[in-house]
Amino acid sequence: MGRSTERDGLRNQLETFALTSFSPIWKFIQGVPFLEQQVNRFLINSAVYKARVRPHPFSLLGLESTTSAYSSWESLTDRTYTARHLPPAEPAYTASLPDIEKVVDVFRRPSNNERLSLKSTLLFSYFAQWFTDGFLRTDRRDFRKNTSNHEIDLSPLYGLNKTITEALREKVRGRLRSQLIEGEEFPPFYFDENGQVRPEFVNVPLFYEDNLPAERKRKLFAMGTERANVQIGYVMLNTLFLREHNRICSILRESHPDWDDERLFQTARNTVIVMIIRIAVEEYVNHIAPYHFKFRAQPQSFYDQRWYRNNWMTIEFNLLYRWHGLVTDEVLIANEMVAAEETFFNNQLLIDRSIGPLFGDASLQASGDVGLFNTPNILIETERASIRLSRLARLRSYNEYREYCNYPKVTDFNQISGDSEIEAALRALYGGDVDRVELYVGLFAEDVRPSSALPPLIGRMVGIDAFSQALTNPLLSEHVFNEFTFSAEGWKTIKDTNSLSDIVHRNLGNDNGQYFVSMTQKAWANT
Amino acid sequence: MGRSTERDGLRNQLETFALTSFSPIWKFIQGVPFLEQQVNRFLINSAVYKARVRPHPFSLLGLESTTSAYSSWESLTDRTYTARHLPPAEPAYTASLPDIEKVVDVFRRPSNNERLSLKSTLLFSYFAQWFTDGFLRTDRRDFRKNTSNHEIDLSPLYGLNKTITEALREKVRGRLRSQLIEGEEFPPFYFDENGQVRPEFVNVPLFYEDNLPAERKRKLFAMGTERANVQIGYVMLNTLFLREHNRICSILRESHPDWDDERLFQTARNTVIVMIIRIAVEEYVNHIAPYHFKFRAQPQSFYDQRWYRNNWMTIEFNLLYRWHGLVTDEVLIANEMVAAEETFFNNQLLIDRSIGPLFGDASLQASGDVGLFNTPNILIETERASIRLSRLARLRSYNEYREYCNYPKVTDFNQISGDSEIEAALRALYGGDVDRVELYVGLFAEDVRPSSALPPLIGRMVGIDAFSQALTNPLLSEHVFNEFTFSAEGWKTIKDTNSLSDIVHRNLGNDNGQYFVSMTQKAWANT
Repeated sequence: MGRSTERDGLRNQLETFALTSFSPIWKFIQGVPFLEQQVNRFLINSAVYKARVRPHPFSLLGLESTTSAYSSWESLTDRTYTARHLPPAEPAYTASLPDIEKVVDVFRRPSNNERLSLKSTLLFSYFAQWFTDGFLRTDRRDFRKNTSNHEIDLSPLYGLNKTITEALREKVRGRLRSQLIEGEEFPPFYFDENGQVRPEFVNVPLFYEDNLPAERKRKLFAMGTERANVQIGYVMLNTLFLREHNRICSILRESHPDWDDERLFQTARNTVIVMIIRIAVEEYVNHIAPYHFKFRAQPQSFYDQRWYRNNWMTIEFNLLYRWHGLVTDEVLIANEMVAAEETFFNNQLLIDRSIGPLFGDASLQASGDVGLFNTPNILIETERASIRLSRLARLRSYNEYREYCNYPKVTDFNQISGDSEIEAALRALYGGDVDRVELYVGLFAEDVRPSSALPPLIGRMVGIDAFSQALTNPLLSEHVFNEFTFSAEGWKTIKDTNSLSDIVHRNLGNDNGQYFVSMTQKAWANT
Repeated sequence: MGRSTERDGLRNQLETFALTSFSPIWKFIQGVPFLEQQVNRFLINSAVYKARVRPHPFSLLGLESTTSAYSSWESLTDRTYTARHLPPAEPAYTASLPDIEKVVDVFRRPSNNERLSLKSTLLFSYFAQWFTDGFLRTDRRDFRKNTSNHEIDLSPLYGLNKTITEALREKVRGRLRSQLIEGEEFPPFYFDENGQVRPEFVNVPLFYEDNLPAERKRKLFAMGTERANVQIGYVMLNTLFLREHNRICSILRESHPDWDDERLFQTARNTVIVMIIRIAVEEYVNHIAPYHFKFRAQPQSFYDQRWYRNNWMTIEFNLLYRWHGLVTDEVLIANEMVAAEETFFNNQLLIDRSIGPLFGDASLQASGDVGLFNTPNILIETERASIRLSRLARLRSYNEYREYCNYPKVTDFNQISGDSEIEAALRALYGGDVDRVELYVGLFAEDVRPSSALPPLIGRMVGIDAFSQALTNPLLSEHVFNEFTFSAEGWKTIKDTNSLSDIVHRNLGNDNGQYFVSMTQKAWANT
C-alpha cells in the first residue's frame, strides 16, 4: 500500500519533482557555466534557508535550568558547548518517552537479515565516518560539550590542535611523518618494537580497546584523531590523504626551492583541506542528493548570504549523522567476505591489500541502508548512547523538527513510512500518538526516497548544516580563496580534482592499476 | 599657509563635503525613518568597504619567516594571534626607520604647552580608554598575541572569562557584587582590612604599581580587567555600569519573580552589552565623525553584507587607537585642577566626589588634542612601547595604508600636516622621503579635520574596524536581537537609551542633581 504523501507539503513535492525530472534541462543548465552558477547559488540557498541561520540563540548550556531556554553571552560565544537548532523540549515530553531499550529494539538489525542500499557503496559509508569524525565530536566527559574545531580542517589527518599537528610533522620539506612498507607509504606506527609509545607521539591521542591483540596493537598508526585506527576505511582514507599531502609537498618544493618546511607544510595543508571540501560537495553530497543537478563548490556565490556565519556544530547535526545502518555485517576484502569486526583496529589488512585494491573493494560492495531495523549488533551500544544523548539534550519531537525544516507535521504514522512493520513499531512505541515520536527515531523511520541515499528529513537537515558550514571555511573566503594562498600548483590541483578516484590514482606508488572508485554503486551509475 | 589638499582624493573630498554641508537636507533625512535607515545603511557600508573585509589572510603569526607572508590554517583560525590588515613590510623598510628615541621626541608634549581639543571633553577620553580596554588587549608576554575575546562584551565590567565573571557575581538576584559607601553603590574592595586579597577575588586579576601608597591600595576595586583601577575615568564608567546592571536586575525581578539568579544575570548582561554598543555608535562614533548625519545602531540593515564576518582585532586597530594626546596634564575635580597622576589608582577621589558630579566634571573639561607633540610625560613610556610594537609587527608605511584605505598616496610632507613644525619634524625624521613615513607617526601627524575629533586616516580606519566589529555582535544577530533575548523590560531599556547622560541620571541614588554629561564640549554643542 505504501507511504501516504499527504503531509509531504506541496512546495516540497514540487521542488522534488522539478529536481528529479527534466533530466535534459538540468543537463543543459549544467553545460552553461553562467547558468550553472546561478542555479547552484539558488539551490544551495534554498537548501540552507530551510531552517534558521546562525548564530543559534541556544546551546546545550543551561539544560539544567528550570525556566525555559534563553540566550546568554556564553550560549552565544562558548563553542565548547554544542549548539542546538530548537530549544529544549518540556521536561514532561522527555519524561513521557518510551523506555530506551524498547527504542533500541526498533533499530536492531535482525540477524542474517541486513538491508542493503540500492545506491551507495561501502566507500560512501567509509567517507561519511572519516569525514564527520573531524568535526562532529561529542566530549565524552560532558555530553553538553564537544571537542570540535567546528571547521572542516581534516583533523583526522592533521590533528585537533597544534601540539598534535607538530608531532605528526616530519619538519622537513613540509611533509607529514610516514613510513614505507614494501615501498608503499603509510602513516608511522604509534608504538616502537617494545610496545612503548614512540617519544614523538606521547602527545598524540590514541584510542584502542584494552583487549586488542598485541599484533594489532603493534600496527596502530599515529594519526590526527584518537579514533583514527578504528576501522580499515578510516585508515585507508587517512593514508590516502597523507600521501596526497606529501605528494603536493614534492610538487611545491620543485617550483619553490626557497620555501622552508613551514611554508611547504602550510600551503599543502591549505590545498588538501579545500580539495576535501570540494569532494565533499561535488562527490559526496551529490551522491546523497537524488537530483539531476549536480551541486558545485563555488564559495564566491555566497559571500553576501545571511547564512554565511561562523560555524557552530549542532546537537541535531551530530545525531542525525549516525548512519549506523550503512555498516554491513561483512566486508569484502580481496574477493573474500570478512566479518566487520575483523576490520576494526586491523591495519595489517590495509597493508596487505594496499590502497588501490582496497578502494576498489569498498566501491564494489553495497553499503547497508540507513533506517530502522538495520543497525548491526556491533553498533547497538552506540545506538543506545545516541538515543540517551538525544534524551539528555531534551530534543523536541520529530514533528516539531519537521515544522522547523518546512515540512508539514505528519498526522499519521503511515505518512512517515510505508513499511507496515515500521509503522506498527512506531505506533506501539508512542501509544498511537504521532506527535510523541522523537526526532532520533523519526529521522530513521522515514523511507529512503527513490534515487536518494538517505531518508528525506535527514537529507534536508544534512543539507542545512553541511552547506552552511563547508562553504564558510576560512580558506574559501573572499580574500583568501585565491592562487596566492594555495600557490599556482596548489590552485591548479584544486581546480583539477573533483573525485576521490583522481586522488587515489595519483597516489598508488608502483601500482599501475585502474580501480573503480565510487560512492555510488556501479549498477546504479550505469542506469 | 596651511595643508595642501592636493592628495586628499576627489572622491574623498566630495564625500566629506557632502557629509559636512547641506545641514537641512541631512536633518530632513534623519526625520524620516525609512530614509534614515537607507542612508544609515549606505553610509556605514561605505565606511566599512573602504578596506578589505574579514577574514584577514594574515595575522602576526609567522613574522619570523624569511619568505613573504602567507596564509596558514593557524593564521586563519587562531585568534590568540592578532590579525593584520596588510602583510609585513620588507625587512629593509623596517630597518631603515629612524631611531625610536627620535620618533618619541615628535610625540612629546612640550611642558606647559598642552594643545586642547576644540570639540571633545574628558568624558570622550575616558570612554575611549574604558571601552577599548575591553577588546584591544596586547598580550604582554608575546606582542604577536592578544588576550581579547574580540567582542564588545564589556569585559571591564564582567571579566574576560567565566572564572572572573563568577567571582564578580553576587549569585543572588542576578546581581554583580557591590558595596554601599555612605548609601552609594560601588564595586567591592579587592583587599580586606588586613591588606589580603579577599578569598572570593583570588582569581580576579589586578594590576597596580608596586609603590602604590597603602591607603590607595586599600581602596582598589575588584572589577573585570586587570587594569580597571588605572584611572578615575575608567573606574567611574565601570561603577556606572555596575549600578545599571544591578538596577536592571531589580526591574527584571519585579516582572519575573520566578527567574533564578542565572537568568536575571544573563538577561541584564545581554541588555547592558547592547546598550553600550548603542552608545558607542550613536554617541561616541557620532561625536568622532564630523558629519551632519548621525549614525544609528541598526544591525538588521547589515545581515547580508560581505563585511558581516567573525570579529578579529587587528594590530593596526590596536595601534591607531592610542590617543595619548587626549590625556590632559591636569584633571578638573570639584572645581579644582589636580595633576593627572593624582587620578591614577585613586578611587577615594571617586568615592568623595561621587558619580554624578564626576561625570559633570569630565564633561566640563576639554580633552587634549590627538596628534604629534601632545603626548603627556606620563605616557611617554607607553608611546615608546607603541612605536616599538609597530616596528616589531613590521607595519607597512603610512602611504601604503593610505592607499589601502582609498586615499591617494601623499607626495609631499605638507599634504600630511599644515603645521610647519610638524612638517619640518617629519621631513627631518624621514630624510625628506615621504614614502618612508611610518604608519604610527603618519596617523598622528595629520591635522585634525575641522568639526572632527580625530585626524582623517585614524577616523577612517576606526570606522572600518569599529562598525564591522560592533554591529556583528552575536546579541545583534538575526535571531537573537529580539525582545525574547532581553525580556520586554530589557528591550524597552535598550530602545529608550541613547546616551550616557540617560544612564547616569537614573543611577544617581539619592542625588537628584542634573548634570551636563557629554563627550562634546558645551560650547561646541551650542554652535
